[in-house]
Amino acid sequence: MDGIHLLGEWYGCPADTPEFTRADALRKVCIDAAAAAGLTVVGERFFQFEPQGVTGTVLLAESHLAIHTWPEHGFVTIDVYVCNYMTDNTDKAERLFRALEAVLKPARALSHSIHRGGKDD
Amino acid sequence: MDGIHLLGEWYGCPADTPEFTRADALRKVCIDAAAAAGLTVVGERFFQFEPQGVTGTVLLAESHLAIHTWPEHGFVTIDVYVCNYMTDNTDKAERLFRALEAVLKPARALSHSIHRGGKDD
Repeated sequence: MDGIHLLGEWYGCPADTPEFTRADALRKVCIDAAAAAGLTVVGERFFQFEPQGVTGTVLLAESHLAIHTWPEHGFVTIDVYVCNYMTDNTDKAERLFRALEAVLKPARALSHSIHRGGKDD
Repeated sequence: MDGIHLLGEWYGCPADTPEFTRADALRKVCIDAAAAAGLTVVGERFFQFEPQGVTGTVLLAESHLAIHTWPEHGFVTIDVYVCNYMTDNTDKAERLFRALEAVLKPARALSHSIHRGGKDD
């Protein structure tokens, strides 16, 4: 099952972004951005750490989004993984990734992509 | 925020394993295996595809588990990502990974690990 997995490490994210610190705000932007990218949301779960910080995932028909924020370190990790079952969803994954980067505004970003599920022979 | 991300592609999984095809069975084994590995479950969401196949995530205090099954292809992808905030959780991540591999019994497996969140300078 061919797919693409985008991984990001975002440093220097501004501390005053609600989506960086609060689960409700991050949940909304993740769901909205996934739908706007043309991906199909089939479930989600977000957890609020106290006093701040969020862990969340959005289940997609195409696979998943996972995001973790550490406001005390200005740091975020993000994973966007889409399979390409009947169509190539790479552009949609990149659109979702960029949309969230635009919200969380890292000063420095590392990212790479991994091919998932190639032939096993 | 230093962490380790284990990625697996499992091929040739037997079709008659309940955890391979049904969300309820996979949810239970994922939660139980995470707890048995010493990780802290803070949420979960699993989605049942019809007629078969599951997408699921377990939110961990340490980060997340994500798993996708394609029974019609005998195929699974798995991600176990743990941060090492106050202690090194690598052994726990590997224990969880191996526990699920033992349940889903791939005939062939590809896996690798990625260091996440190193210093950005």
